Amino acid sequence: MLESLKEQVFEANLKLVEYKLVLFTWGNVSAVDRDRGLVVIKPSGVDYSKMKPEDMVVMSLDGEKVEGELNPSSDTPTHLELYRRFADIGGVAHTHSTFAVAYAQAAKDIPLYGTTHADFAYGSIPCTRDMTQEEIEGEYELNTGKVIVECFEKRGIDFNAVPAVLVHSHGPFTWGKNAGEAAKNSAILEEVSKMAYLSENLGASQANEFIKTKHYMRKHGANAYYGQKNPGI
Amino acid sequence: MLESLKEQVFEANLKLVEYKLVLFTWGNVSAVDRDRGLVVIKPSGVDYSKMKPEDMVVMSLDGEKVEGELNPSSDTPTHLELYRRFADIGGVAHTHSTFAVAYAQAAKDIPLYGTTHADFAYGSIPCTRDMTQEEIEGEYELNTGKVIVECFEKRGIDFNAVPAVLVHSHGPFTWGKNAGEAAKNSAILEEVSKMAYLSENLGASQANEFIKTKHYMRKHGANAYYGQKNPGI
Amino acid sequence: MLESLKEQVFEANLKLVEYKLVLFTWGNVSAVDRDRGLVVIKPSGVDYSKMKPEDMVVMSLDGEKVEGELNPSSDTPTHLELYRRFADIGGVAHTHSTFAVAYAQAAKDIPLYGTTHADFAYGSIPCTRDMTQEEIEGEYELNTGKVIVECFEKRGIDFNAVPAVLVHSHGPFTWGKNAGEAAKNSAILEEVSKMAYLSENLGASQANEFIKTKHYMRKHGANAYYGQKNPGI
Amino acid sequence: MLESLKEQVFEANLKLVEYKLVLFTWGNVSAVDRDRGLVVIKPSGVDYSKMKPEDMVVMSLDGEKVEGELNPSSDTPTHLELYRRFADIGGVAHTHSTFAVAYAQAAKDIPLYGTTHADFAYGSIPCTRDMTQEEIEGEYELNTGKVIVECFEKRGIDFNAVPAVLVHSHGPFTWGKNAGEAAKNSAILEEVSKMAYLSENLGASQANEFIKTKHYMRKHGANAYYGQKNPGI
Repeated sequence: MLESLKEQVFEANLKLVEYKLVLFTWGNVSAVDRDRGLVVIKPSGVDYSKMKPEDMVVMSLDGEKVEGELNPSSDTPTHLELYRRFADIGGVAHTHSTFAVAYAQAAKDIPLYGTTHADFAYGSIPCTRDMTQEEIEGEYELNTGKVIVECFEKRGIDFNAVPAVLVHSHGPFTWGKNAGEAAKNSAILEEVSKMAYLSENLGASQANEFIKTKHYMRKHGANAYYGQKNPGI
Repeated sequence: MLESLKEQVFEANLKLVEYKLVLFTWGNVSAVDRDRGLVVIKPSGVDYSKMKPEDMVVMSLDGEKVEGELNPSSDTPTHLELYRRFADIGGVAHTHSTFAVAYAQAAKDIPLYGTTHADFAYGSIPCTRDMTQEEIEGEYELNTGKVIVECFEKRGIDFNAVPAVLVHSHGPFTWGKNAGEAAKNSAILEEVSKMAYLSENLGASQANEFIKTKHYMRKHGANAYYGQKNPGI
Repeated sequence: MLESLKEQVFEANLKLVEYKLVLFTWGNVSAVDRDRGLVVIKPSGVDYSKMKPEDMVVMSLDGEKVEGELNPSSDTPTHLELYRRFADIGGVAHTHSTFAVAYAQAAKDIPLYGTTHADFAYGSIPCTRDMTQEEIEGEYELNTGKVIVECFEKRGIDFNAVPAVLVHSHGPFTWGKNAGEAAKNSAILEEVSKMAYLSENLGASQANEFIKTKHYMRKHGANAYYGQKNPGI
Repeated sequence: MLESLKEQVFEANLKLVEYKLVLFTWGNVSAVDRDRGLVVIKPSGVDYSKMKPEDMVVMSLDGEKVEGELNPSSDTPTHLELYRRFADIGGVAHTHSTFAVAYAQAAKDIPLYGTTHADFAYGSIPCTRDMTQEEIEGEYELNTGKVIVECFEKRGIDFNAVPAVLVHSHGPFTWGKNAGEAAKNSAILEEVSKMAYLSENLGASQANEFIKTKHYMRKHGANAYYGQKNPGI
């Protein structure tokens, strides 16, 4: 079932390797079929070079395995919570990319220092709060999803305008309209993180509000004029 | 029309990928035909791996599309302003290369710390002033070109001797006698930016004036003796 | 003799090159055959591109060469001491990977800043004390092994839970259940070191104890649920 | 003439590209034939990908071109001064490698922070003093060689034990018993420079004297025991 979606998720997982965002079996990408309420995700701890499209695991949105011989990624409950609560997203990616992890480990938002960031996200990339003993010793991966959602809700951040988060002491999750876009957003986030790191060391301040709005809107707004009418991803 | 120039511009855009200066569809290179008053530029948001020479867009110097099915780069008005005001240049390149962006986001000039820089440019690489709300909400890309020109004029910098600028909160533009040299200058600027970043962290001061003049002149002066009489690019 | 183990050690040494952890002839990996009390190790100063499986040198655990035409790695006595004192390990790797060396040269432990580290090791990666004149001018490589063991014993660190050490002013040694895992742990340590370096520059504090325990145990504990029941390395 | 030496110098120049030490036409390697008093060096400003062994230029030790259609590297007088004054060296290399240049631009020695450095050089890599207006406006490249020699003489540094120097505001020169070893030393110097940069940021102190002596001597001393009796380079 869902052979086409499995192929997309498989390809998007390989993109993490191509973008140099993962070592060994680290990282995972998933996608959702909203009509059927099913999620396709990478199996846990499998070598990218040996992985096949048919190894992708199919899960229901409430966490039951529907198809697949392998265990799904251990981060699956985080992905599912994001699909349940972020209504419009079609794909989720998780990596331990170096500079984004550094911000997550430092428990710092990534401020919007310039247009590369504004082309990608409308405002800072938020870092979640530290998780409690109960959250960690309980349903940890589910609770990871919950603190991400809490972070966006409490701070009034639109998940469509900021397609990425840093999980405290852990690393980034990104999302998009499908698996490919989610993976691509992981690559952009890593580059934005590296630029922010270097900029801070040089003493940068955040970009002004008008630059932020101009760049985000010329690419993502109703009157966007970046790219072609009919762009591929 | 301008098939040869399209080929040159196409090749120079691919060089940005080869030099590892761009991610995805970021970056753009153009060239001008001064006799006809026409500029050839990369289309907006097209994948480098799918782009063909015939996809290049031909624009008049005052901003009318003359040929091409695709939209030109959204940064086209910046390129055109540079061609109108910097009389001798033949090619322009724009990237979001990491270290040059860091300086642009920190709103800092790149000081001339040594001979690698002096082989390339006769003095600091300037960073433009922050743009105003009016400039950003108005003809933003045209105004970006105007603040670049203003920066060089107000500070008395010769655009032939300093073939690069950092746009505040944004990133670098470079130029040269043709598209290939403009792209090559983007690669050199990125390396010079990285060296400057590291040198500043080690406590560097600017190189003395004689070193600066010696290196610039032995490569670019009337009695230059670097390279061969008949060098390729 | 030990042709299969030689092949494994040979392949693991080549992994150091593939993981970009070594320059020229730097680095070395070994493995032990516990039943026979023999260790197979890379020859000293041989080019990775010219090395063959049959060049691997066979040593007894007390330091006698048993087979091989070439000199064993000059670090052999360090490897042997680790096999003698760390009862369960099957492979040892040594590199001069850049960020791990930086911590070793700064004589600093690598604190556990996040989950990437906790997936790998249960606590800080320790740095050994400075060696004395006597230790250095005496049996230096053997004494290097001894200060590693002393470091783990004095600080009560379990070498099974922390499969890596930084030798003061020198660089990392890592170990694992076989040569391949030892080499892989060198790659993970380098990435963890780089993340720690960047995190410290951003002002990071150590991750909380619950995150540390959760991540280590979900991958390495009795009830581990990361990966598949029957994983490859 | 000197076809074999030209081939060696040609190959060593290509190594600079393979080691990722140079951009475009930057960098140059030479070798000397001590019996004939002739030096073979890379031509100035020629693309590495188009260069051929027969393009190498033959110079006399006092600076006359003996053979070759192309101009020799503009840094030739520096190389020649090193051959005249450093009696035993057989090859010289010059690059603008990033981290070594950062130290040169910061006008700082590279302290010996650990064994990677001690395996390579017996003490700090010195940085020359700033050159005067007269030295720069006069025979600049020859004077560059003179300040290198002055630096080693005034500070009592043995050029056989420290095969590298940083030229103030410029970059590194390295040497060795032939062109290949000179190029290889440029690669090691760059790695040592990067490690030193990172180590300083982590607060490193210099390694103790015994470590320095032990590592240098086990590889380069009369009783060296690193490597094989009959090693290749």
